[in-house]
Amino acid sequence: MHTDLVAALDIGGTKIAGALVDGGGNIRLRARRPTPAQDDGETVMGAVAAVLAELSESPLWARASAIGIGSAGPVDASAGTVSPVNVPGWRDFPLVARVREATGGLPAELVGDGVAMTAAEHWQGAARGFGNALCMVVSTGVGGGLVLGGRLHTGPTGNAGHIGHISVDLDGDPCPCGGRGCVERIASGPNIARRALENGWRPGPDGDASAAAVARAARAGDPVASASYERAAQALAAGIAATATLVEIEIAVIGGGVAGAGEVLFAPLRRALRDYAALSFVRRLTVAPALTGTDAGLVGAAAAATAAATRTCVTPPVVAGGRA
Amino acid sequence: MHTDLVAALDIGGTKIAGALVDGGGNIRLRARRPTPAQDDGETVMGAVAAVLAELSESPLWARASAIGIGSAGPVDASAGTVSPVNVPGWRDFPLVARVREATGGLPAELVGDGVAMTAAEHWQGAARGFGNALCMVVSTGVGGGLVLGGRLHTGPTGNAGHIGHISVDLDGDPCPCGGRGCVERIASGPNIARRALENGWRPGPDGDASAAAVARAARAGDPVASASYERAAQALAAGIAATATLVEIEIAVIGGGVAGAGEVLFAPLRRALRDYAALSFVRRLTVAPALTGTDAGLVGAAAAATAAATRTCVTPPVVAGGRA
Repeated sequence: MHTDLVAALDIGGTKIAGALVDGGGNIRLRARRPTPAQDDGETVMGAVAAVLAELSESPLWARASAIGIGSAGPVDASAGTVSPVNVPGWRDFPLVARVREATGGLPAELVGDGVAMTAAEHWQGAARGFGNALCMVVSTGVGGGLVLGGRLHTGPTGNAGHIGHISVDLDGDPCPCGGRGCVERIASGPNIARRALENGWRPGPDGDASAAAVARAARAGDPVASASYERAAQALAAGIAATATLVEIEIAVIGGGVAGAGEVLFAPLRRALRDYAALSFVRRLTVAPALTGTDAGLVGAAAAATAAATRTCVTPPVVAGGRA
Repeated sequence: MHTDLVAALDIGGTKIAGALVDGGGNIRLRARRPTPAQDDGETVMGAVAAVLAELSESPLWARASAIGIGSAGPVDASAGTVSPVNVPGWRDFPLVARVREATGGLPAELVGDGVAMTAAEHWQGAARGFGNALCMVVSTGVGGGLVLGGRLHTGPTGNAGHIGHISVDLDGDPCPCGGRGCVERIASGPNIARRALENGWRPGPDGDASAAAVARAARAGDPVASASYERAAQALAAGIAATATLVEIEIAVIGGGVAGAGEVLFAPLRRALRDYAALSFVRRLTVAPALTGTDAGLVGAAAAATAAATRTCVTPPVVAGGRA
């Protein structure tokens, strides 16, 4: 029996998606249920089990060697538990054990959704071929993940790369996370829209007050709308520059709905990056839009499971003159 | 012939120190010259060569298997060059090639001084036994380094961990690095003293206006002196929390002259850390004073050279079910 496929779960506040992914990153089978986000934990798990049951009805299922799980955070990969902010019925929910149980004991790898998106972009997207990268999703929230030294850097609990909740404004507005002046508090879609409204921007006749509507207004020349994107770009630039200064990344990849604003976001972002990425070793840093789409969570979860299976590092004894 | 020792260089703006270090981290031989920091590049190199010549006169020299070089930054480990801010005669100076030439071709590993201090603290100091750590030097400047997944994370150019130049105040004061609101601009010794003076603190009869004098005043109850340390602690906390949120560290170790202020710094730092390290996976983060002393640069450079000699990572082919 070939075991050339990897199963994947992408668990968010709106939907639970499952797939079987092949070694080329192609999705060979899909299943999907809405997330009963406001129900109790067992009901949410029931939706996950239904997705897995649907996948396992296929003859392809027997070819799955492992399962990758990307979940809305926070997650705790070391404990195998998840506590997604938008799924209150799951607090320290033992998702890994329950998924293993539901799959007859498949090896399971749990990562946060930002890490999963990063795995997908590193495998097939704009971060492909880069040894050191930050990948971000800027939408309702701001998430991310890191590639360091050619490998996905998940961190001990699977949460590394949480750029949305680093403070770039230590005296700034309180953030729902408990911090202050976080990147997300300035740069997320809802905050771009809020700031534009607070400064006098008004939606058009369609009443659309989303960040996408603010982007359209900016493109049409509205200075308040432009300024709100410029402020978001400044916060993103400070966060990206901080990441580059701390761990040396060569590229920052940005996906998510807010990245859809295109040059309204990317032009001021590139300018602001020159202000904050000032040291010699971070000046070559580039930014690029993400290339993977809505399947990034599934493809990335599969990639993370594959990476986990191959994550073996052999340290030979010290040898004199072993490296020039 | 045993090759059980490692040579080390610690190159700063004031002195150039050299040593032979054994496998237990003990210094077996030392040499030292003042840095002719304002002279031309060849004169500075002459001082390095004199240190190496003095070491090589010992019979122990033949037992050295490699040389570790810790240098004031920025460095470029990929190119083997250094451009220390305080040594204007060295810009993209090919230090690795020149040291190899001067040592008859010993394998050489170049790292920034913050990375060297981190290697020492991980080997013998407060970060010992931790898989993920940030180590910092807070003195005239603010430098640092990272341990990730049990290994020194140098980054491609040897500059990773540069926490002094991440922005925690995106609208803050310009920093000499070209950025704005950097941790160093708020938390270094000279900035602690400057801020205290600007807010009305006055030195005692001895005229000492250093950060150490501000710490003594804070200990004696001066509120302006205390407030200057509290602001520094806030910036350090925001930077440490950002690092933990980005890469998941378990401990932050702080050395350097400013750390000598003791609880004047550490008490507000621990309080401020609770404000910025808000997400579940960073709440367990602790801070501790550094344990290695003035030899940290030498011991750490030796450790970095040893780590480089053993840095071999073997990735086997994907095997199904290879990891639970």
